[in-house]
Amino acid sequence: MADVELIEVGPRDGLQNEAAILPTADKVRLIERSVAAGLRRIEAVSFVNPKRVPQMADAEAVMERLPRPEGVRYAGLVLNRRGLDRALAAGVDEVNVVVVATDEFSRRNQGCTVDEGVANWARIAADARAAGLFRTVTIAASFGCPFEGEVPSGRVLDLVRRVAESEPDEIALADTIGVGVPAQVRTLLTGAAGIAPGVPLRCHFHNTRNTGYANALTAIDHGVSALDASTGGFGGCPFAPAATGNIATEDLLYSLDRTGVATGVRMAPVTETAAWLGERLDGPVQALLGRAGPFP
Amino acid sequence: MADVELIEVGPRDGLQNEAAILPTADKVRLIERSVAAGLRRIEAVSFVNPKRVPQMADAEAVMERLPRPEGVRYAGLVLNRRGLDRALAAGVDEVNVVVVATDEFSRRNQGCTVDEGVANWARIAADARAAGLFRTVTIAASFGCPFEGEVPSGRVLDLVRRVAESEPDEIALADTIGVGVPAQVRTLLTGAAGIAPGVPLRCHFHNTRNTGYANALTAIDHGVSALDASTGGFGGCPFAPAATGNIATEDLLYSLDRTGVATGVRMAPVTETAAWLGERLDGPVQALLGRAGPFP
Repeated sequence: MADVELIEVGPRDGLQNEAAILPTADKVRLIERSVAAGLRRIEAVSFVNPKRVPQMADAEAVMERLPRPEGVRYAGLVLNRRGLDRALAAGVDEVNVVVVATDEFSRRNQGCTVDEGVANWARIAADARAAGLFRTVTIAASFGCPFEGEVPSGRVLDLVRRVAESEPDEIALADTIGVGVPAQVRTLLTGAAGIAPGVPLRCHFHNTRNTGYANALTAIDHGVSALDASTGGFGGCPFAPAATGNIATEDLLYSLDRTGVATGVRMAPVTETAAWLGERLDGPVQALLGRAGPFP
Repeated sequence: MADVELIEVGPRDGLQNEAAILPTADKVRLIERSVAAGLRRIEAVSFVNPKRVPQMADAEAVMERLPRPEGVRYAGLVLNRRGLDRALAAGVDEVNVVVVATDEFSRRNQGCTVDEGVANWARIAADARAAGLFRTVTIAASFGCPFEGEVPSGRVLDLVRRVAESEPDEIALADTIGVGVPAQVRTLLTGAAGIAPGVPLRCHFHNTRNTGYANALTAIDHGVSALDASTGGFGGCPFAPAATGNIATEDLLYSLDRTGVATGVRMAPVTETAAWLGERLDGPVQALLGRAGPFP
């Protein structure tokens, strides 16, 4: 039993911001390799407008070719009813619905205000529940907005309250642009646990300003049950300026392994997959473990 | 008054592991720029064998050309009596004496066993005290050794006890090869504060495996009074395989500023100096702030 669940988001958040579009077969291979390393929750695809995010246009083809071993769950990110329909048809286990914490970023990311985003989540949550899907809702820009700047923690916690009304199976706080610090993690997680008692919390960090790993470890100290990470640290957000990679699965794993936090994931195959992915994307691997090597 | 003192170690630890040897005038400029950014303690030079560390061969020339504004203290790293004599002649304000926590690394770094290192520190401490110098002692490889692997916290704390007998003005725990995690920081700092009550503690972290910033923030939560950092994140150790850069002054500053920890250092000039230094060393700046930009 894992002390903390790692969600491999490389296939979705990792790939969607890369200039190179990975062939479907390579996406499937990436996911297969992650499963082989011990990852049990994988954000495999997103069902969004292929004109806006061409990297995810083959979501159905990816899902169709994936192995479905016992105990492994695949998530698809959806922003609307059309996305949910595609997710259902493709056979995902989970839907991840994004609500953005600021109006300007919400408009640019998904063409709606924050209030419309909450209403949208409520509709998708009800439909997904009827279909028997696990529903996770992600509050993007919880730690700061690329357009509006500071996001008061009170506003984020009010959103936690509002999204909790639709009974999510999990609520995530996302530092979409990598500006958060551990003090914010403490404030938001402590507040969220009080507002939505019993709802598992997940966090999503980027290492844009070298705070991502400190945030992740602080989140574990404050009761988070799941953390997103991306093999090799690839990733970003196409609609947020200067957003860089997710925290890397292998680097997070290094800290967790040495801290005695169980994840069920083995580091060596993740590091090997990062090197493999770097070759395919023709880009540098941001993660440091592959260069530094394990210890001891 | 600063909540935590930042020690700029770029001129010493940052430059000693770079293939390029910076001209004396550029070293002086680096230090002048750091002073202008608000840094008040600077590890400017080391007085070691120039055949072993040619990057530091001009230590006397650097010290001679430095401005000496009120309130700014320059440190020189020394390993033996000869180094101390050079440091005294050059007019440093502080000596930083290194004791390595493991025999094999100690032999490779400074040609003596751990026990000989402790005895060496005791002699230098007495002489430096007689000369009126501030004396800081750094226990290298406190979080792990590149040759011996794990270093038990009990062994490090025993060294804290032994070096404290020579009444240092400060004791530092150094993660020389960047393997430590926050759980170790907690254990070691809590233990050290109990063993050497009243002695200010400093920490020295490298970000080799993406744990350096989490370690630094944890150290502040556990009463450390000073942290080493290097502008741009340059640095390493010539005698430790795969050791990479120190935590970067500007990236650490980002976390501290957003956490409300006062340092007296301004970020923008540090980021500018990192870019300037990167050009001179013809190497990439490891720090992320220069690329990501400040927030909000």
